Amino acid sequence: MAIAESKTSTSNRSVADLRYELVTLGDELLLGLTQNGHLTYIGSQLARRGVMLKRNVTVTDDADVIAEQFKESWARSDVVITTGGLGPTCDDRTRESIASVLGLELVFDKQIEKAIEDRFVHFGRKMTPNNLKQAYRFDRGEVLFNANGTAPGLWVEQDGKVLCMLPGPPNELQPMMTEQVIPRLAKMGYLLDKEAYIQIRTAGVGESLLETKLQPVYEPYGNKLSVAYCAHAGQVDCRLSSPSGDLTLAQLQVIADKCAVLLGEDFMCFGHDSLARVCADLLRAQNKTLTVIENATGGLLASAFTDLCGAAKFFAGSSVCYSNDSKMQMLDMPECILLQHGAVSDESAVALATAAAEKFGADYALSTTGFSGPCAGEKENPVGFVYIGLYAPHGAWAKKISHPGPRKTVATRTINGALDWLRRELIRSTHASDGAGKITDATQ
Amino acid sequence: MAIAESKTSTSNRSVADLRYELVTLGDELLLGLTQNGHLTYIGSQLARRGVMLKRNVTVTDDADVIAEQFKESWARSDVVITTGGLGPTCDDRTRESIASVLGLELVFDKQIEKAIEDRFVHFGRKMTPNNLKQAYRFDRGEVLFNANGTAPGLWVEQDGKVLCMLPGPPNELQPMMTEQVIPRLAKMGYLLDKEAYIQIRTAGVGESLLETKLQPVYEPYGNKLSVAYCAHAGQVDCRLSSPSGDLTLAQLQVIADKCAVLLGEDFMCFGHDSLARVCADLLRAQNKTLTVIENATGGLLASAFTDLCGAAKFFAGSSVCYSNDSKMQMLDMPECILLQHGAVSDESAVALATAAAEKFGADYALSTTGFSGPCAGEKENPVGFVYIGLYAPHGAWAKKISHPGPRKTVATRTINGALDWLRRELIRSTHASDGAGKITDATQ
Repeated sequence: MAIAESKTSTSNRSVADLRYELVTLGDELLLGLTQNGHLTYIGSQLARRGVMLKRNVTVTDDADVIAEQFKESWARSDVVITTGGLGPTCDDRTRESIASVLGLELVFDKQIEKAIEDRFVHFGRKMTPNNLKQAYRFDRGEVLFNANGTAPGLWVEQDGKVLCMLPGPPNELQPMMTEQVIPRLAKMGYLLDKEAYIQIRTAGVGESLLETKLQPVYEPYGNKLSVAYCAHAGQVDCRLSSPSGDLTLAQLQVIADKCAVLLGEDFMCFGHDSLARVCADLLRAQNKTLTVIENATGGLLASAFTDLCGAAKFFAGSSVCYSNDSKMQMLDMPECILLQHGAVSDESAVALATAAAEKFGADYALSTTGFSGPCAGEKENPVGFVYIGLYAPHGAWAKKISHPGPRKTVATRTINGALDWLRRELIRSTHASDGAGKITDATQ
Repeated sequence: MAIAESKTSTSNRSVADLRYELVTLGDELLLGLTQNGHLTYIGSQLARRGVMLKRNVTVTDDADVIAEQFKESWARSDVVITTGGLGPTCDDRTRESIASVLGLELVFDKQIEKAIEDRFVHFGRKMTPNNLKQAYRFDRGEVLFNANGTAPGLWVEQDGKVLCMLPGPPNELQPMMTEQVIPRLAKMGYLLDKEAYIQIRTAGVGESLLETKLQPVYEPYGNKLSVAYCAHAGQVDCRLSSPSGDLTLAQLQVIADKCAVLLGEDFMCFGHDSLARVCADLLRAQNKTLTVIENATGGLLASAFTDLCGAAKFFAGSSVCYSNDSKMQMLDMPECILLQHGAVSDESAVALATAAAEKFGADYALSTTGFSGPCAGEKENPVGFVYIGLYAPHGAWAKKISHPGPRKTVATRTINGALDWLRRELIRSTHASDGAGKITDATQ
């Protein structure tokens, strides 16, 4: 898959032309013990500000290898971000390796020492001497404060280039990136100071149909407007930017608003919210609650909601009921439906959702029942066929969806299908109670 | 974190010295739209056969960039594996770029064409002409069959080096890797033909305590034995290998068996099984069932089980019950316990597990209740404090665990804590019914 890179420019510098490189350090990445989440996080943060990473290199913890790799990356880049290797153990050699390449000295910093000591005192733990290794910083450059760990980040500007070194743990790195690194780079003109694009997020509509629908809105703007589509798991995002700078963000938003109205229910939100968050916002706005019974998705649909802060306010609860006994015992589901139609059927999906809404005292309910594979399935309902049930205050329905593919894909598609159905139903009930077609309300 | 690399050797070649490089292609990786799961998968597969990836490079879909990067990687490596860029669209330029570097011609292959056409017929879809781009292969080398997609892989041996090009979708790549690539590399002596190490997986015991316990077992073997520890989320793995080749896998297994006996319940399994799988195997062996009520883990504990094939045989079901009403309504939980002790307490954890076991008719039940953060919490039970309840046929207990940290860490630690507790209880009940201390039974 390739996504059109939006060439965005500020008044005196085109940030899209800057060469950013990410060097991720750690044997655990190369041995497949840990996912390289830093690439995903940093890549998406930079993209929002108009920059696409040119390259990500992962190398071992070997000091010589780090030095050699950094030398290469530094030579061809404007900005190099490194992650990992700043910890207290003897394997953490990133500081030394990079200092040698850039001709920097390491100096002991009393302020960092104090911050490390304070952290240990705060958590009532005893500090081992090796932790003081983290109190060394470069003789030039600055220190990036780490609110969630002992290893501070390091920042060096040299030859018009920027080096930014961040610690490996994601809960330390991520706030440092958003609160310190991005503002610094933006201030230098190395990133846009605002989001580079307006993103229109859609659900339940294909890329080509979307393009056909929106083309007439875009046409009048010609080359002033750049449009990039990105499809993922049943959603399509459409990013509007103005590489020439002819259109301001406010003007782009006016175009995006037109698209949203034209798309009606297919429009999901502006920005980066998940389907679950959009549903949650709609439920909260209407003061309604939801429950899910997810025999085909085994806990993941609930997790999409419970992951959100304050979920208890709108999420009544959930259940996975595999056996027919548990469906009857937990949900008071009528046995006759299970016997007559089978647990994997339109009828059971409706009955599950209805029973769950009643038991949990919820306004809305979703159910999933089917075989997500790869080791079950029936002749009539092979692996990949799943029924989704939706209960709403004004009715209950089911539909069959089919996504042959690996287990994980089946689950993701089922979850997104269920959430999108709920989302549309919630929008309709907003309109019914409003008496007006305020599509954009859905995302506020 | 650094993990000691085991230098494993076959009779005439040290595979650990071979330079493997992974080149992952795709703008979506650099823009942070997709996780780089290929690094994790391929890295771990190679590590099992005695090789640590030297480097992973991710670059854009630009044809010139791909060619330039491949040239670099090829020059310094013995084996280069590429992923992605083999699809039917105009952005998929990997074949052409690499052909130009290696001086290869692209030729149209009638057999591949037939396979692509057959696939479209099988799924009742119409083939668009651009799909035939995937029928081009190099004039030298071989084609790797793709059972789950239209883009075959490509394999070239040149100058004693190996190039292996795999398609991007994980469900296509992964079986091609295990069924075709690894056996080919092993046959050439570029990977070990068996696993490079015996892995002892432990749970609920710290790395330093583990080391102290096992050292006496390892000592007699001196340099013949190499031991590497790897800690992750409350588990510690211990990998035994014999870099010199002095100890066979069978001899390593004898040493590992001794460790397992010595570790008792702290021993989890040999190999790479998850805690959930180990619990599932114990439940199946004892013909017992399990249910979980997970108010603090919101669906993820259930998902650890429902992810396993055939889970319905031992997993009775699960529930998330946020409100006190739903706890009473769904589980018949006594209101007095909730009122007297609060929903987040030892007493409620026990009552939840007990009620769930009864409602689902399960032999065992786990419950989690607490605040996983970051936006709830009480004075007595701040974010990161979670109660786990365990119901077994012979009793019910609760314990409080504390893991200050980000939400995801709290959830993972809670889930692993709950699973490890269940695992230990299941082992004890095996012994009680056996009347013998057969620890290793737990993993068969």
